[in-house]
Amino acid sequence: MTHSSEAHDSIRAVQWQGNHLRLLDQRRLPGEESWIDCRDAAQVTQAIRDLAVRGAPAIGIAAAWGVVMAAQQAAAFEPALAMLRAARPTAVNLMWALDRMNRRIAAGADAAALEREAQAIQDEDLAANRHMGELGASLIAPGSGVLTHCNTGSLATAGYGTALGVIRAGVAAGRIARVYAGETRPWQQGARLTMWELVRDGIPAQLIADSAAAHLMKSGAVQWVIVGADRIAANGDTANKIGTYQLAIAAKYHGVKFMVVAPSSTIDMATGDGEAIEIEFRDPAELLATAGVRTVVEGAKAWNPVFDVAPAELIDAIVTERGVIERPNSIAMQAMFGC
Amino acid sequence: MTHSSEAHDSIRAVQWQGNHLRLLDQRRLPGEESWIDCRDAAQVTQAIRDLAVRGAPAIGIAAAWGVVMAAQQAAAFEPALAMLRAARPTAVNLMWALDRMNRRIAAGADAAALEREAQAIQDEDLAANRHMGELGASLIAPGSGVLTHCNTGSLATAGYGTALGVIRAGVAAGRIARVYAGETRPWQQGARLTMWELVRDGIPAQLIADSAAAHLMKSGAVQWVIVGADRIAANGDTANKIGTYQLAIAAKYHGVKFMVVAPSSTIDMATGDGEAIEIEFRDPAELLATAGVRTVVEGAKAWNPVFDVAPAELIDAIVTERGVIERPNSIAMQAMFGC
Repeated sequence: MTHSSEAHDSIRAVQWQGNHLRLLDQRRLPGEESWIDCRDAAQVTQAIRDLAVRGAPAIGIAAAWGVVMAAQQAAAFEPALAMLRAARPTAVNLMWALDRMNRRIAAGADAAALEREAQAIQDEDLAANRHMGELGASLIAPGSGVLTHCNTGSLATAGYGTALGVIRAGVAAGRIARVYAGETRPWQQGARLTMWELVRDGIPAQLIADSAAAHLMKSGAVQWVIVGADRIAANGDTANKIGTYQLAIAAKYHGVKFMVVAPSSTIDMATGDGEAIEIEFRDPAELLATAGVRTVVEGAKAWNPVFDVAPAELIDAIVTERGVIERPNSIAMQAMFGC
Repeated sequence: MTHSSEAHDSIRAVQWQGNHLRLLDQRRLPGEESWIDCRDAAQVTQAIRDLAVRGAPAIGIAAAWGVVMAAQQAAAFEPALAMLRAARPTAVNLMWALDRMNRRIAAGADAAALEREAQAIQDEDLAANRHMGELGASLIAPGSGVLTHCNTGSLATAGYGTALGVIRAGVAAGRIARVYAGETRPWQQGARLTMWELVRDGIPAQLIADSAAAHLMKSGAVQWVIVGADRIAANGDTANKIGTYQLAIAAKYHGVKFMVVAPSSTIDMATGDGEAIEIEFRDPAELLATAGVRTVVEGAKAWNPVFDVAPAELIDAIVTERGVIERPNSIAMQAMFGC
């Protein structure tokens, strides 16, 4: 296999194999690049629930392929759709992809047509990411430093990434001079996955403890915080990985700008504001052990919400493939995403 | 050995043995309670540098015992003092304890007199903590929730604790109904040490990811953030474990109150404000591996400041054994701590 200069951002973590879905197991990165083959919708559901595949766009794409396997296997659609839909509650891309597949089912699509639909979802996501990369990078003044959170790269999407796509485009255009990534406890998506993608791309970057972000901002090293999203409400309030809200508050305090980058499949115009977004809580055990080692005394309890909501008033720009909304509010959101 | 009801808060991590210093190795908690015997000032220095003993008051006390061993061994004081002083730069209690020992040396004290001085430093710290516990707890309305950061308990002091002393006193007085502790990456002092102390004391507490603090505040569950300090400047700016600044910003945003608890040995009237406080950076490797497991790809870099500064305007109360300063500023600090 030859590698082009774009080889690195062409990592594809979600790969359709004609009759099954191959997923790069993100729990094992960066130590090990191992792949999981999902052979029905139930296995895709399990992979989503266990975080073998994660990232709002990627789980939507994986779920679409789960529906294709149900069709190929002549399985009942309704239980497959219900099971996939319930895998994780916060990211709306999952519901969006399943709704799109379901509309094709309702229109009488056969397995081959559903396969084309899932491929379209995947291809459109990659194209959206490249377009958002250009749009987002254009907002950034040359020589800027940026801080990102969680992983929003090739691993979280069909490829290239949302927030990490903007960072890739911004570095390529010479606008971004410094990249910092937060660890993103407890799953360490920033430490394990974003640093892995950045090092592969040869993009100079530094990892920070999540709690070092405000001190970093005070140092003057970053001009933008750039994050992805799991769900954006009709007023621009944005649910994203736990810690995003804290970064948005610190950014506002320091006059650092805050950018959300997400495909329009992340927009949920049916949800009025962030208060109405269901926040997923995960097993406290995720905080009680680290890297497989028990770090907390027996008998300890933990509180483990894995998303939070950055309110629209703390967001300077929402970047989607349809365009940029600066200083988002209900009116601007309705103008771009209303029916 | 019988245990009284106070047995648990009577953990003593720094124990003078007459001719050597025994330290509870805090790097191995909570998995293992193992002890280190330091037999000269160089070994104490190493234990401070390696974080076997940590916490601003505790390292000051340990250093004082290092000076006693130098006296007993008829070693030269100047290199011993210089070595201990350089062990860690941010906590001023270290310099304060060494200055206090040095004044006794200059006055011609013998080894026995220096031993009494070190014991006084240790005893006064414990007494100060119990007094601060009462003072701090009196500020908290009954039924409140509190969030703390890092470890400021018996392990970090001569016993009882600073911020954790206020929490102990507040829980005992029925004022504190809910306790949350941040993990405190990268060393996990909150996860490993604070939760260990709280579980031993039977105080119901929940661990959170550092980045979940703002979301917790938004939920209404906490009314106070309570932290310790490594150095408090003449205007009230407070250096403390990395993440403290971020908590102070988030607290202000939510109207949650912010309390700093530290003995007066933490006050540095010779330092005008937080800008002048040296912030220790530690090995990036501390962020690249977690619990002894490499979690970040080879070739990755990290930025690892281990303290930051909460400016006085974000602090509602500084509690010392001499009294409480509400809304700290230079004038109030000078009135209480000026010469």
